[in-house]
Amino acid sequence: MTNPAPLRVAMIGYGFMGAAHSVGWRQAPRMFDLPRAVEMTVVVGRNADAVASAAAKWGWAESATDWREIIARDDIDIVDIVTPGDSHAEIAIAALEAGKHVLCEKPLANTVAEAEAMAEAAERARARGIRSMVGFTYRRVPAVTLLRDMIAEGAVGTVQQVRAAYRQDWLVDPEMPLAWRLQKEHAGSGALGDIGAHIIDMTQFVTGQGVEKVSGTIDTIVTERPLPSDGSMGLAKGAGAAETGAVTVDDVAIFTGRLANGALVSFEATRFATGRKNALTIEVSGDRGALAFDLEDLNSLRFYDRTAPDGRQGFTQILVTEPQHPYVSAWWPAGHMLGYEHGFTHQAVDLVTAIADGTDPHPSFAEGLAVQRVLDAVERSSTADSAWTRVGAPVPAL
Amino acid sequence: MTNPAPLRVAMIGYGFMGAAHSVGWRQAPRMFDLPRAVEMTVVVGRNADAVASAAAKWGWAESATDWREIIARDDIDIVDIVTPGDSHAEIAIAALEAGKHVLCEKPLANTVAEAEAMAEAAERARARGIRSMVGFTYRRVPAVTLLRDMIAEGAVGTVQQVRAAYRQDWLVDPEMPLAWRLQKEHAGSGALGDIGAHIIDMTQFVTGQGVEKVSGTIDTIVTERPLPSDGSMGLAKGAGAAETGAVTVDDVAIFTGRLANGALVSFEATRFATGRKNALTIEVSGDRGALAFDLEDLNSLRFYDRTAPDGRQGFTQILVTEPQHPYVSAWWPAGHMLGYEHGFTHQAVDLVTAIADGTDPHPSFAEGLAVQRVLDAVERSSTADSAWTRVGAPVPAL
Amino acid sequence: MTNPAPLRVAMIGYGFMGAAHSVGWRQAPRMFDLPRAVEMTVVVGRNADAVASAAAKWGWAESATDWREIIARDDIDIVDIVTPGDSHAEIAIAALEAGKHVLCEKPLANTVAEAEAMAEAAERARARGIRSMVGFTYRRVPAVTLLRDMIAEGAVGTVQQVRAAYRQDWLVDPEMPLAWRLQKEHAGSGALGDIGAHIIDMTQFVTGQGVEKVSGTIDTIVTERPLPSDGSMGLAKGAGAAETGAVTVDDVAIFTGRLANGALVSFEATRFATGRKNALTIEVSGDRGALAFDLEDLNSLRFYDRTAPDGRQGFTQILVTEPQHPYVSAWWPAGHMLGYEHGFTHQAVDLVTAIADGTDPHPSFAEGLAVQRVLDAVERSSTADSAWTRVGAPVPAL
Amino acid sequence: MTNPAPLRVAMIGYGFMGAAHSVGWRQAPRMFDLPRAVEMTVVVGRNADAVASAAAKWGWAESATDWREIIARDDIDIVDIVTPGDSHAEIAIAALEAGKHVLCEKPLANTVAEAEAMAEAAERARARGIRSMVGFTYRRVPAVTLLRDMIAEGAVGTVQQVRAAYRQDWLVDPEMPLAWRLQKEHAGSGALGDIGAHIIDMTQFVTGQGVEKVSGTIDTIVTERPLPSDGSMGLAKGAGAAETGAVTVDDVAIFTGRLANGALVSFEATRFATGRKNALTIEVSGDRGALAFDLEDLNSLRFYDRTAPDGRQGFTQILVTEPQHPYVSAWWPAGHMLGYEHGFTHQAVDLVTAIADGTDPHPSFAEGLAVQRVLDAVERSSTADSAWTRVGAPVPAL
Repeated sequence: MTNPAPLRVAMIGYGFMGAAHSVGWRQAPRMFDLPRAVEMTVVVGRNADAVASAAAKWGWAESATDWREIIARDDIDIVDIVTPGDSHAEIAIAALEAGKHVLCEKPLANTVAEAEAMAEAAERARARGIRSMVGFTYRRVPAVTLLRDMIAEGAVGTVQQVRAAYRQDWLVDPEMPLAWRLQKEHAGSGALGDIGAHIIDMTQFVTGQGVEKVSGTIDTIVTERPLPSDGSMGLAKGAGAAETGAVTVDDVAIFTGRLANGALVSFEATRFATGRKNALTIEVSGDRGALAFDLEDLNSLRFYDRTAPDGRQGFTQILVTEPQHPYVSAWWPAGHMLGYEHGFTHQAVDLVTAIADGTDPHPSFAEGLAVQRVLDAVERSSTADSAWTRVGAPVPAL
Repeated sequence: MTNPAPLRVAMIGYGFMGAAHSVGWRQAPRMFDLPRAVEMTVVVGRNADAVASAAAKWGWAESATDWREIIARDDIDIVDIVTPGDSHAEIAIAALEAGKHVLCEKPLANTVAEAEAMAEAAERARARGIRSMVGFTYRRVPAVTLLRDMIAEGAVGTVQQVRAAYRQDWLVDPEMPLAWRLQKEHAGSGALGDIGAHIIDMTQFVTGQGVEKVSGTIDTIVTERPLPSDGSMGLAKGAGAAETGAVTVDDVAIFTGRLANGALVSFEATRFATGRKNALTIEVSGDRGALAFDLEDLNSLRFYDRTAPDGRQGFTQILVTEPQHPYVSAWWPAGHMLGYEHGFTHQAVDLVTAIADGTDPHPSFAEGLAVQRVLDAVERSSTADSAWTRVGAPVPAL
Repeated sequence: MTNPAPLRVAMIGYGFMGAAHSVGWRQAPRMFDLPRAVEMTVVVGRNADAVASAAAKWGWAESATDWREIIARDDIDIVDIVTPGDSHAEIAIAALEAGKHVLCEKPLANTVAEAEAMAEAAERARARGIRSMVGFTYRRVPAVTLLRDMIAEGAVGTVQQVRAAYRQDWLVDPEMPLAWRLQKEHAGSGALGDIGAHIIDMTQFVTGQGVEKVSGTIDTIVTERPLPSDGSMGLAKGAGAAETGAVTVDDVAIFTGRLANGALVSFEATRFATGRKNALTIEVSGDRGALAFDLEDLNSLRFYDRTAPDGRQGFTQILVTEPQHPYVSAWWPAGHMLGYEHGFTHQAVDLVTAIADGTDPHPSFAEGLAVQRVLDAVERSSTADSAWTRVGAPVPAL
Repeated sequence: MTNPAPLRVAMIGYGFMGAAHSVGWRQAPRMFDLPRAVEMTVVVGRNADAVASAAAKWGWAESATDWREIIARDDIDIVDIVTPGDSHAEIAIAALEAGKHVLCEKPLANTVAEAEAMAEAAERARARGIRSMVGFTYRRVPAVTLLRDMIAEGAVGTVQQVRAAYRQDWLVDPEMPLAWRLQKEHAGSGALGDIGAHIIDMTQFVTGQGVEKVSGTIDTIVTERPLPSDGSMGLAKGAGAAETGAVTVDDVAIFTGRLANGALVSFEATRFATGRKNALTIEVSGDRGALAFDLEDLNSLRFYDRTAPDGRQGFTQILVTEPQHPYVSAWWPAGHMLGYEHGFTHQAVDLVTAIADGTDPHPSFAEGLAVQRVLDAVERSSTADSAWTRVGAPVPAL
C-alpha cells in the first residue's frame, strides 16, 4: 500500500475564526486516525506582517497576501475560507474552479444570489471530484450530533415543535464600537445572518427537514455606535471614538418557521440577551419524547422519553463524554469535558475523511444556500409586516 | 376599637380552581395577620350532591346550586368566581351590581366584549366602594413579585427584550379526551387564552408596560380527539370513548409583541412541549441587568447584574425564601420552600387587605381586559397571516 | 355504617413547629379523604396570652397552659408534642400512659435514656392499641417517599455508598444570639441532634438498614454569642445584647457510618455552610443505579439507571408531581409544585390512617430511639478521637 | 535582542496522560505568547513500536526506549514524566541530577520516602537554577485559579469549612478488570492516591493552608476482579478473563481534615459514585461568602457573597470565560467553553514561563510531598480505627 499524499491546506483569512480553524487542522491528525495526512501550508491575509505573525503563531508553514496566487498553486489541495462574508463567493468559486476542495465559513454568503452561484460552482466541481463544505461547526459538537442521531432513530417520534435560540449580550453595551459585523456591506446582516444562521442550520440538520416558510421581525435596538477609533474593524470594547455611525444590521431577529411536516419552530437570534454569552439552545418536542441542548453546557444532552414508565419519566442529562458518543472516543475518558474548539477538529476530520473516501461532506453548499434562503425570507417577511413568507426555492435533500 | 365584621365569601364553581381558592381562603387568616376575618360561607355549583360534598371537604359552611340567590344574600361580602370563562361576565356583573366585591378567575372573559362590560361594571361598582380583582395568581408567587419590584427599582435598567413562555405537555397524548378546555364555546380559546393569558399578564405586570401590538400564529396540532366517555368534561386520561370530536381551540400560540417603549417580547403558549409540565418562564433583559424566573423552580429568581465588577458577573440564584422577600415572612424560615397554592393565599390576603383599606386591588378588571385585548389581537393577527396587529384600545395604567 | 368519631388533637407547644403542625392538621382533612375526621381541639403553652393568640390565629378551638390537665381530658385522642427536646420524654410518656396516641417532634429526646423510656412506653401502649409516631416529616416529602420506594423495588440494586448532608448557614453570623437551640440543657445537641437527626433517619428509612457504627467529629466554630436581649430564647438576628454566653452545643458534625450491609455513609450536619439555607441532600449509590435528592429542590428526584443502554445513561430529573407519585394525587395537576409544609399534612394523614386502621405508624418511637443511639455514638466517637464506635443496641426492624 | 533558544522536551511515558501532556506542549506555543519556544523532541517508552507510533501520532520528533539515555542528552531541557507512580522517583531524581527541568505527573510518588527524596533532589537542583513542578493540572482550570484568587482577595473571608470530593463510577462494574491502577505495587494506592490526591492539593492550593491532621477510612468494595485477559494493564471493560485476582488498593476513601486555622474539611474520593463520571467538587465556606466548583461543569464558578444586600444574596454562577479570567484571554470570546485538556496547555505555559523568568513554578515537589504526607496520614488513620492522625511534617509555605 502506498502512503497517500498529504492534503495541503491554504487558509484565507486570519481573524478569530482563523485561530479556531487552525486548532482544527492542528489537532485533527494528532487526536484522530485520519486516512490522509494534513499539512498547514499557507495562511493568506492582506496585511503582510500581521499574516506572517499569525502563520508563525499558529503553525502555518508560510504566509501570503494574494489569495489568487495561492489558489493557483499546485501544492494546495484544500482552501479554507474564514474571511468576512462579502468575499466568500469570489474566493470559493475561484478555488473550486481551480480544482481545490473548499471549506467555507458560515454563513455561506451575504446574499442568496451569491450563495446560488456558489452552490452551482460546488455542483460543477463535484462532478470533477472536488468537495465543498460549509463551516456550521456546531453540528459537530458531540451532543448535537447525538441529538440528530437520536431523532433519526425515532427517540422523539414525530417532531411537533422546535424552539431554537441563539442569545448573546455583547451589544448591550452602547459603547461597543461599530465593528464590521455591524455594517451591512461587510456582514450582510447582523444577529440574523451571523448567529441566526446557526440555529436555522441546526434545526434543519437535527430534524432532517427544511424550513419552508417564515414569519419574522428584525430590529435594531441601538442604532448609533462610536466608530472604531483606529480605523480598524475590531470589536474591542472601549475602542470607540467620539464620532458615531449608523448600525446598518439587525441586533435581534425573532421569527417563526414551518418545517416540511408542518411543525412550528420558534427562532430567536439576539445580541441583547443580557447575561447570556453564547447561549445557543434548541429543544425538539415530539410525540414520543423531547431532546434539549444548550451550548453553554455543551457536554450535555437532555432527553425526555415519553415511553418510559409513568412516574419515572423526566429529562435525563446525558453527559456526552462516553466512548459510544460521536467523536468522543478519540479524546478522553468518560466525564472529561470537551470545549468550543473541538468542533473545528471534528470538522477537519470529517472533511479529510470525505475527501479520502470520495464522498460528499455535509453541510454542502446547497445546505448553506438553504440557510441563506431562510435568512432572506425572514428579511422579506420583516419588511412585509411579518407576513408569512415562503422560502425561495425547494430545500435540498439533507 | 370595635372588631371589624368578618368578610363572608361565596365561591361560585368547584373544579380544580375551587380547590385552590379554598386553600387560599382557609390559609390566609391562619398564616397572615389580616385586617378583617374571613368566613368561608357558601360554595355554589349546579350539581347539588357534588357541591355539597365539595363544601364538606373543603370547609365551606354551606353549599347551594343557584348563584343568583347567593349573590342576592345580605350575608355575602365577596363573590369568588371559579367557573369556566363563558359564565364569568354574567356572574361578575350581577355580583358587582349586587354590591359584592368580586374575585374572578382568569382569563377575565372569553371575549373582549364581555371583558369590556365587566370592566365597566367594575368601574361603576368602584365608585360605590366595591372592589374587583382578576385571579392572575402567579403575580403573587414571591419570586414574581420580587421580579416586578426589582425592575421597578431599576435592577435591569431599561427593558430591551422579554421572553415569556408557558409550556405544558398534557395534550401530546392523542388519546387525551375532548375536555371543555378544548371546546371554543366553553373555553373561548385554548393554550392562548388559558396559559397565554398568564404570560401576557405577567409581562405587563413586571415591566409596567402594555403590549401595544402583536404578530402571531396559533395552531392546533391534534385536531380530533375522543369524546369524554361519560359525557363529563373531565380531563382524565383514558376517559376517551371510540367517538371523536373536533378540537376547536388552539394547542399552541407563538407570538411577538411590542411594549410601549418599543421592546420586543417573544411569547409561546403550548400544550405540546413534551416533558414540560407547567413551565412558565420569563426573562427580562435590560441595559443594566436581567431577571429570569421559572415556575417549575418557583422559589428561585435569577438576577444578572451588569453593573457588578467585570469578571464577577453571572446569574445569581436568589432563593426567594428570606423574610425580606414578598409574603415570605408569614411562612417559614429561610430555605423552606413554598409551593403552587401559596399564591392563592397571597391573593386572598391582598384582596382582604384592599377591601379593609379601601384601596383598589390588582390586577383590576381593566388589567384583565387589557390581557383580553392582547389575546384578541393575537387571534386577529393569526388570521391575518401574522401581520402586526394593534391591541384594540389604550392599555390602562398598571 | 356509623360515622366514626372524630379524632381530637391537643398540641403541646406553639413555636415554629406548632405553626407547621397546625397546617398539617388543618389541611389533611381538606385535601385528603381521611377515614376519620380531625378536630383541632386545644393548643397548650406556658404563656396564657401568647398561646391563646396562637390558638386563635391557627384555628385551635381552645388554648391551655397545663399540659397535664389536657392529657387527662377524655375528649383528647391525639397528643402532638412540639416542645423543645428536653420535655419530650415527660409529656410523651404521660400521654401514652393516659391512653393518648402521640405524635412527637424529632429528635425523639435529648438523651438515649429518655428515648429508651419513651420507646418502652410506646411499646406498652401499643399493646393497648395506642399509636405513637416521631415527626421526621421529611420522610413524607413525595420525592423522599418515592426514593425509598424505588430502592425497595431494586432501582439502585445493592446499596454501596450513601452521602447525606444537611447544610444551613444561619450561624455564620457571629451576632446571631444564643437561642435555646444553642444551649445543651434545652436542645441536647446542636447541628448534630437537630438536623443531623434528619439525615440519619432518612438514611435508615430509604435504605431500610440501620447505621451500625460511626466515626465522627463534632465542632463548635463560634463559641461565644450575645445573649438574647429580651431574655427570650428567640432566634431573631440583631436581638443580641452586649453580654455574651458560651455556645454549649455543636455547630458542625461530620461523621461516617456503616450500614448493616457494610456500605459506608458520609454524613455532614452543619450550620456554617455559607449560602446553603436548608440544603438536606442525600445520594444513594448502588450497583444498578443511583438516586439523589435535594430539599432545596424538593419536587425533584434524580435517578441514574445503570441498566439503561450505553450512551443513553444519565441522571433523570423526575418531577415528583405526577398522580402516580406518593401523596400527590390529593393535590394539584402535574407540574404544580409542593412546598415545605406539605410533609406535615402527609404526616397527619398517615397518623390518622394508622389509628383508624389499627396499624403502627412510622417512624415509630423505636425508630426514633435508633436515631438517638446513632447521635449518641457520634458524640462518643468524637470524644474518643473519632474512633469507630458501635451504635449501642440492635437497630429495630424498619 | 537575541532570540532565546527553544526549550526541548522529552516525555517519559505515553499512556492517557501522555496524550494529554502532548496536547499541552502542542497548543501552548500556538495559543499563548511564550517567552521561549518549545520543541517536542522525544517521547520514551518501553515498547519501541508502540512508542514510535505514539510519537508519530502526537507530533514528537523522535521516540526512544531508554529514558536514561534520553536524560543524558544535551539537547533536552525539560523531562516530562507521565509514567505510573512507582517509577517517578527514580526518573525524576536522575533527571534533576542531570540538570533537566522536571514536570512530574501526580501523585508525586507512591510513598512518602520517595516523595521526600524527590523534594530534596528538587531543592538541590533549584540551587542550580533547575525547576521542578508536579502535574496537579486542575489548579489550572480557569475557574479553579479564579477560586483561589478570590479567596486570596478575601471574597469568602475566613475559611470555616471546606467540602472536597472526587467521584467517579468506573469500578461499579464488577467485570472491570484488575488494571495496574488497582494493584498496590504499581499504583501505590487506589482512589485515595489517584483522585484523593487532587482534592487534597486543590484544598491546600485554594485555601493557602495545609491539612495538618486527618481522620479517615479507606475501603475496598469489590475485592476480586478478573485479570486483564491479554496480560496488559489496560482498563478496557470486557477485557477481563475467567481468572481473577485480588484488588490491593482502596476503592473509596472518606476522611476529615483540619486546616492550619482549625477549619474542618470533609473529603471523599471514590470510584463507586454511580452516575458520577469525573465529579471533582469543592466548596469553601467562609464568614463573608462561599465559593463552589464542579469539574463536570468546569467553566463555571459559583460565588455566594454574604456582604451583598439582604434579600439579594444567592449563588452567582460566574461563567469563567471572560478575558479578565485566568488564562482565558488567550482562547475564545466570552461564552465559548474550555475543556479538560486546556489545563495541560496552561501547565506547559506556566512551566515555560517560570523557566524563562527564573522563578519557581507551582506546585513544587515540596507541595507534592505535602500531599503525599496527607495521603499517608489518611492510610495510617484508617488502620488506627480512624483516629485523628498528624500529617508527618511541617507543610511547606504554599
